[in-house]
Amino acid sequence: MNFASGLPDPRTIPKNEIKEIIAEAFEIYGYQVLQYSPSSGLSKLVKEVIKFVYRTRGLRANLNNVIIVSGSQQGLELVSRIFIDPGDIVVVEEPTYLLALNVFKLRKARIVSVPVDDEGMDVNVLEDIVKDLKKDGKKPKIVYTMPVAQNPTGVTMSINRRKHLLELAEKYNFIIVEDDAYGLLSFDYEQPPIASLMGLNNVVYISSLSKVLAPGLRVGYVIANENIINKMYVLKQFMDLGTSVLGQAIAQIALEKGVVDKNAEYAKRLYRLKKNLMIELIDGMFFSESWRSNPKGGFYIWVKLNKNIDTRKLFEQSKRNGVIFTPGANLCVNTYRCLDAMRLSYSNPSEDEIRIGIYRLSSLIREMANVS
Amino acid sequence: MNFASGLPDPRTIPKNEIKEIIAEAFEIYGYQVLQYSPSSGLSKLVKEVIKFVYRTRGLRANLNNVIIVSGSQQGLELVSRIFIDPGDIVVVEEPTYLLALNVFKLRKARIVSVPVDDEGMDVNVLEDIVKDLKKDGKKPKIVYTMPVAQNPTGVTMSINRRKHLLELAEKYNFIIVEDDAYGLLSFDYEQPPIASLMGLNNVVYISSLSKVLAPGLRVGYVIANENIINKMYVLKQFMDLGTSVLGQAIAQIALEKGVVDKNAEYAKRLYRLKKNLMIELIDGMFFSESWRSNPKGGFYIWVKLNKNIDTRKLFEQSKRNGVIFTPGANLCVNTYRCLDAMRLSYSNPSEDEIRIGIYRLSSLIREMANVS
Repeated sequence: MNFASGLPDPRTIPKNEIKEIIAEAFEIYGYQVLQYSPSSGLSKLVKEVIKFVYRTRGLRANLNNVIIVSGSQQGLELVSRIFIDPGDIVVVEEPTYLLALNVFKLRKARIVSVPVDDEGMDVNVLEDIVKDLKKDGKKPKIVYTMPVAQNPTGVTMSINRRKHLLELAEKYNFIIVEDDAYGLLSFDYEQPPIASLMGLNNVVYISSLSKVLAPGLRVGYVIANENIINKMYVLKQFMDLGTSVLGQAIAQIALEKGVVDKNAEYAKRLYRLKKNLMIELIDGMFFSESWRSNPKGGFYIWVKLNKNIDTRKLFEQSKRNGVIFTPGANLCVNTYRCLDAMRLSYSNPSEDEIRIGIYRLSSLIREMANVS
Repeated sequence: MNFASGLPDPRTIPKNEIKEIIAEAFEIYGYQVLQYSPSSGLSKLVKEVIKFVYRTRGLRANLNNVIIVSGSQQGLELVSRIFIDPGDIVVVEEPTYLLALNVFKLRKARIVSVPVDDEGMDVNVLEDIVKDLKKDGKKPKIVYTMPVAQNPTGVTMSINRRKHLLELAEKYNFIIVEDDAYGLLSFDYEQPPIASLMGLNNVVYISSLSKVLAPGLRVGYVIANENIINKMYVLKQFMDLGTSVLGQAIAQIALEKGVVDKNAEYAKRLYRLKKNLMIELIDGMFFSESWRSNPKGGFYIWVKLNKNIDTRKLFEQSKRNGVIFTPGANLCVNTYRCLDAMRLSYSNPSEDEIRIGIYRLSSLIREMANVS
């Protein structure tokens, strides 16, 4: 039972449609689908991405605002290479996405965290931090946020906080790095990305097709102002010359034919069902002191046990029982605050695995807490 | 007429075989071909790469010595991230591969060049440089070389120089970064890579399937000792989570079925013909003072006009006449030494384009040199 991975449910990967799309890609592109292409991405794909983010996210972009990348992760890497020098201040949510944290650490950033509550990043806390920094003549270089279906809490930032965040970015002159990986997997109603509210001036928007089409294609995109995108073109060329052309051609046709839109709808419904199942089981089985987030979308639930249980030790035990998850400490800057927390992913395991796994996990937790 | 690009000849991209291989990949891997995979690469592909480099290049490696990368370029990026800190000394051949030079510069390396002659990098010059550095308590961190069919000269390093280079690496404790991108496109007889001569101790070997199968798949590999590969696993995960799984599955099956081996043989014969054609035209049409390299493989001829002609100016003129190439200054550390030089690529243009393009180019050169 793997509650640790961020792998999509196999049912959300439209294998047969993609097989057909590949045949079409060979028809349309011929051998070019296997040749080098520009580092910035296939222009036909860029055009489809522009239409896609407008129709699904209300985000306006033109040809000079987009670069195709090898998944969101490469977008984060490009951001960190362009904006972060050693010692620069990077603000992240706490808890946050592990591999973003690692990328920022690798650039020797000074990482500052802002807690997440039911309305997302606590922007008032951020404001205090930014004001304090200003007194020392400092400011954050970037603020990294996943405003919709945040990883690992699943919470979505309220519209007021998004606006507040944008005001702070403008006033204190920092860049908001908006990771919208789960933006199309919002369970209740669509939430506009920050980048769509007041233009691209202070926002770098990153997303991908990994959660709504197929992660193995490694196709994502960054949308930002032209200056930033131009810098990314150059760096991207040095890093890998360009993203898999076959993957790009598949993405282009899947977007054009509406396969991605349709598939995202299906995925969203499936993940909502699985989220509801896991939540029901947690609420029924975990002891009453424990707390869980209320995911508005995405792949994950954040659980705080509120008992003196180190989830890294729990992990060792549960692993022997065939259940893995992500210990909270891995996802926090202030690890001590997250020692009793854990991220549970419902995206990849089957419904039966969710039932069995949560049962085993709750038994182990009760054992460790000496609660019967 | 594009003599500037490093694109393979479309005839060397086995489109129909790859179409069939994709169908097989869906049979064998199912939806997994579209799912996330380990950052280190598909283990079945790693095994095929090990067999492939042994049977074609005599290079021995085990499972811990290999990482799959998104093309050679990503291999260079990983090398530079792992070995180079600002101010570190990196030795390159002169002339060399532009995007390697740029990657090293981006890491703020101090770049030192060693000239290339008909036997490849002049290792005696390198020895002098290394001895001088040692007097100041310094040494190169890495020495970057393309020993077979060097880009842009096409020359192959003699076996004595390769051994000499290895001795220096051992004695002065530096890493040889061996870029074998054109290693399977050696026109006369196979030349063993440096990494196959005395084990992997001081060598990082980089190659890819871009020139012998299809560049659009973005599949390459780095072979080195386990310590280095382990560092690359971690970095690669931060950079893009992993290489396109579909591309990896195609590569695995193409290697297993011998499609790559067969295709490389075909490509080698085709490029030899095109090289001979271009050489014949250059020798017949360029004026007698000019000098050209004698490529032993690969995609390129290096021409030195030995006249007071700046090839960057020539480029502007020839571009207007529909002929582009790479001015030599772009490929040199000491640009002044290469002002009258140019790289001419015969890989992508058709035979007719080569005939017309070289004719136009020679006319322009004669005009600029006032030679009739």
